[in-house]
Order: sequence, then structure tokens, then C-alpha cells
Amino acid sequence: MSRPIDPTDLFDRLCTGDRVALARAVTLVESTLPAHRAMADELVAMCSSIHPETRRIAISGVPGVGKSTFIDAFGSLLTAAGERVAVLAIDPSSEVGGGSILGDKTRMERLATDPMAFVRPSPSGGNLGGVARSTRETILLCEEAGFTTTLIETVGVGQSETMAHGMTDMFLLLVLASAGDELQGIKRGIMEMADMVVINKDDGSHSALTGPARGSYTNALHLFPARPDGWEVPVAACSSVEGRGMTELAAQVERYFTHMRANGELVARRQAQAIQWFDAQLNEGILQTILIDPSLNPIFAALRDTVRNGSTDVPLAIQKAMVALRQRLD
Amino acid sequence: MSRPIDPTDLFDRLCTGDRVALARAVTLVESTLPAHRAMADELVAMCSSIHPETRRIAISGVPGVGKSTFIDAFGSLLTAAGERVAVLAIDPSSEVGGGSILGDKTRMERLATDPMAFVRPSPSGGNLGGVARSTRETILLCEEAGFTTTLIETVGVGQSETMAHGMTDMFLLLVLASAGDELQGIKRGIMEMADMVVINKDDGSHSALTGPARGSYTNALHLFPARPDGWEVPVAACSSVEGRGMTELAAQVERYFTHMRANGELVARRQAQAIQWFDAQLNEGILQTILIDPSLNPIFAALRDTVRNGSTDVPLAIQKAMVALRQRLD
Repeated sequence: MSRPIDPTDLFDRLCTGDRVALARAVTLVESTLPAHRAMADELVAMCSSIHPETRRIAISGVPGVGKSTFIDAFGSLLTAAGERVAVLAIDPSSEVGGGSILGDKTRMERLATDPMAFVRPSPSGGNLGGVARSTRETILLCEEAGFTTTLIETVGVGQSETMAHGMTDMFLLLVLASAGDELQGIKRGIMEMADMVVINKDDGSHSALTGPARGSYTNALHLFPARPDGWEVPVAACSSVEGRGMTELAAQVERYFTHMRANGELVARRQAQAIQWFDAQLNEGILQTILIDPSLNPIFAALRDTVRNGSTDVPLAIQKAMVALRQRLD
Repeated sequence: MSRPIDPTDLFDRLCTGDRVALARAVTLVESTLPAHRAMADELVAMCSSIHPETRRIAISGVPGVGKSTFIDAFGSLLTAAGERVAVLAIDPSSEVGGGSILGDKTRMERLATDPMAFVRPSPSGGNLGGVARSTRETILLCEEAGFTTTLIETVGVGQSETMAHGMTDMFLLLVLASAGDELQGIKRGIMEMADMVVINKDDGSHSALTGPARGSYTNALHLFPARPDGWEVPVAACSSVEGRGMTELAAQVERYFTHMRANGELVARRQAQAIQWFDAQLNEGILQTILIDPSLNPIFAALRDTVRNGSTDVPLAIQKAMVALRQRLD
């Protein structure tokens, strides 16, 4: 990004579906440089956050469940049907390092070369709040560029699922049919987020296990109270490699969106997400403003120093910082 | 907690090792009631955050790896050697629900009835920041009550590991020796946090796999650059059920603390953690103060309403909120 960027120009090019402009815009919202941030804010403010006709789908599951291969197969089915598909990844990097030990698993051979698809690797580094914001903003940019379906792959487990759930219309939980204790290790909270459970790798020797696994998951889902939106979470099965079950699965997804649009739940969900987004951004804005405040910043820094050298315990240092903040507001 | 609480009295009783007082104090720091919070702050401010002689050890690993059984065996070994052992759990609940689908797995039969141990289930609910704070504060309370070793079990995966790493001296990563792709699914970031890798369930038919698994993990650890603190991360193996390898493992833990104390790294790590804690608490304090500010709160609420009813997009609403905040500071 050595050339100067004109957000209005970038937005105009983006709206024509220009993929170079889109990639550039996404790089801008992922940047942590203050100058880029200001331009990104301007750019995003031009986007509508309401595109009622689009679909935002989270693809989740433990490492090894085959998310990338699934997205490649499912996304290709959608583009073949005329959809323009954007693929994003959420990877809140760990404190020390990031990424899988086996390296980048994003192998979406078909989608990567599909002119109807836009595959964006997850941004590296950045804090949780930053990842959430840039992903939310990237969804808007993709939709503004004419992508009708956005698939968001969660990388890792835990926080990324919650984050993806907070910005999508539908949460697909991919699982494997393994003998015995399928449900071991799947957190109740993740199951509760699922709008559809997909038994992946319904191929080869795994196929024999699909039936029993479907029964186990269906039973587990029945342990939850009925959903207020009236949707019964289906358990689908597919082979991302052989393509088996993929058409039926796409039909279930279609059925979900029809159901959720008809009862107004889709709009309600997006409104609730907008509130969450507002609150998260408000918190971030407040912190940025207060922490660099010219009269408070030196006080906070001095207190941090006394913590560093061990002369003040943390709880006491915080007490003093709060006194300074309240005085600043008086 | 119907009786009125006197933090000074509670602190005094705590310091005698009174377990009822300790349990009561922990309940206090876990409470989200503002009145309790104020007393908790007072109580915690009396604790020293530096107990150089204590050991804080995180026990991590995917669900099913046998963390609870390991803690029961390892903790019992420590109490038999005269240590007083506190066991805490970090479980940042999911957005929707919390806990494992298989229910509470905390089964520590020996430690639960061991007079030298204090086992505290993880607090339910609460946000990430709240869980981190109450766990940090609980460590201090336990140490003040004379517990020399605190074991912190991470529940779930992802955020809880990072959190536990940020408040302990040593990070134990429990793994299973399974045929083939042991390293599948273990995030690079988690491996980088590990101060020791422990192959658990080195018993029965698993034992044959221990040797190859140890080789795989040792090789994987060699992919990382040498640590600045000079510690070479060992790969141990044990059977929590049969007790095999547990004494050797305890010796490795001892060797780690001797090493880290001798080179000053333990103190450095705790100082760095104190800074992180200060920053986290400072952020929380700032948000709490600003969000309830009598002149800003109504403005933020009105903007949130315009987001809710769809009349303002989030980025624009945030812009307006920031203008109000800057005016308040002028």
C-alpha cells in the first residue's frame, strides 16, 4: 500500500466487483496502522451493514474434521449454482504464536481458482477485538462487492467459534462419526450454537459409523429445550471428498434461510449482532481514547512502572488509577 | 453470605489457614455484586502478590486427555511430600452455555478428601475478564492461606490456556500417545507455551505407543528456537491411574523451578504477569467508569437504540460516540 488510498475511489471500484479493490480494502481494514485505520473507518462507513439478501455461514469443528475440504466442496456447489462466495477465516492467534503446527491447512483447490469465489486467508496476529472487527468489516466489504454468501471458517477452538457465531446467520458444526464417544470433547456451548450438525467424511470405512453417529447427535440435540425460533437442528452427513450428501445438505441450508427469513428471526439475529458489534467497538474506542489521554497517560505509565519494579501491588495500583480517572472527569 | 463480611477479619482468619474463611473469600472475589466487589477489592489489597516461594502450575490438554485424574495423582504425590496444594479450574464459559456436555468431569477423589488440599470448582458464568480476575485473586488468597502449590486446570481449549499461561510459573501440556498423527490438532501456540509435555495414560495397551510419541513430540519441540531462559522442554510420560512415571515427573517439575529460580526467570515471569494483570484491570476499570458516566451513558444508550432499530449503521454510531467522549474530556 505505497500508493495513497482514496477511500471513496476504493469503495466505488469495490462496488463494481473489482477483486483487486476488494483485496486492497480488506488489507486496509486488517491494518493496525493508525493512518490506515482512519481510512478504513471512512471506507466502512460507506458500506451498508444491512444486506438482507446475503447469507453469512460459520463453518466450525475441531481440527482434523475437514473444514477446508468441506468448504471447497460446499462453496463450489454454491458457485456452480450461480452464487458468488467469499471465504474468510477467523483465527484469534494465541498469546505466544499463531497458526497450526502442521502449517496452513487452507487447501481449497477448487475455490482458490474459481472466478465466482474470493478466498481470503486469516489475518496474522492482532488481538481478539481486532480480529473480530476486521472480520466483521470484511464481511461488509465482500457483500458490497457482490458476494452473496460468506463462509467463515473458524480456526482453532473456543473463542473463534463464539466470535464467528456473533457475526453469522447460520452456524454449521462439522463432526466426525467415530466409534463410541462421539460427544466426548464437544462443549455443550458449541452444540447449543449449532444451527446444523454435519457429519463429515461420510466415505470409505467411516460410512458404517454415520448412522449410529447421526442417532447420537440427534439424541444429544434433543436434550436442549426447543428453540424459540422454531428451527429443529438437523443432523446431516456428507462426504466432502466424494460429494455424497452435499446436494441434500445445501437444500437443508436453503430451508434454514427460508425458515428464518419467514419468521423474521434472521433480521432479529442481525440486529442483535449489530448491538454486540456496537458495544464491542464502543469499548475499544473508549479504551483507545482514555489510554492516550495526555493527562492520564503519564499517570497510568508511572503506576505501571511501580508494578513492574514490585513497589506497588496490582490491586493498589488500580485503585490509584481509578482515582485519577475520576478526577479527570470532574 | 448473609452475615455481614469484615474483609480485615476474613483476611486474618484466612492467614491462619482457615479453610472456611478461604472458601468464603474465594466466593467473595467470584461475586459480581458491586457490594461484594468492593469488599473483595479491600481483601485482595491486603494480600501480597509476591510469594516468591510458591509454585503456580497450569495443567492443560484437550478434553479426554485425563487432566482431572492426573491432577488427583500428581497433587496427592505433592501433599504426601508435605506440600499444601490448591486446585483451581479456569473455564471461560461460552457465549450461550457453559460446561461439558458430559457434565462435571472434575473427579479428584483423593484430593477432594485430602486435608492438605483445597479443591475449588470453576466459577460458573461470568465474562472472560471476570474469570481471569477472580482466578488471579484466588491464587493470591490460597497462597496467603498457606498453600504452597497451586494447580490450575484449564477447561475447554483456546482462551483458557492463554489465560492460565498468563498467571502461572509453569505450563504442563498433557497429551495422549495415539498412533500416527499425535500432533494433529495441537496448536503451535499451545506447544510454544508448554514448559513440559506429559504423555498421559502410559498404561495398558497405550504403553507401546509412548516411545514413538515421545520421539514425535521431542522432534516437534526442536522445531522451535532455543528458549532465552535456557530451559529445554522435556517430554515426560506417566500413568495417572497406575502411578507409573509420576515420581520422575515430579522431579522434572522440581528441576524446572530450580532452574528458573536460579536464573531469575521466575521473578521476571511474575513481573511480566503483574504488568499484564495491571493492564487488564486498568482497561476494565476505565470501561466501568466511562460507561456509567452520568453524562455519557444516556448518549451511548441513545446511539445503541438507533443501531437497534436500524436507523444508524454501527461505524457511524461509533463515530458519534467518540465525539461525545472527546467533548466530555475537554
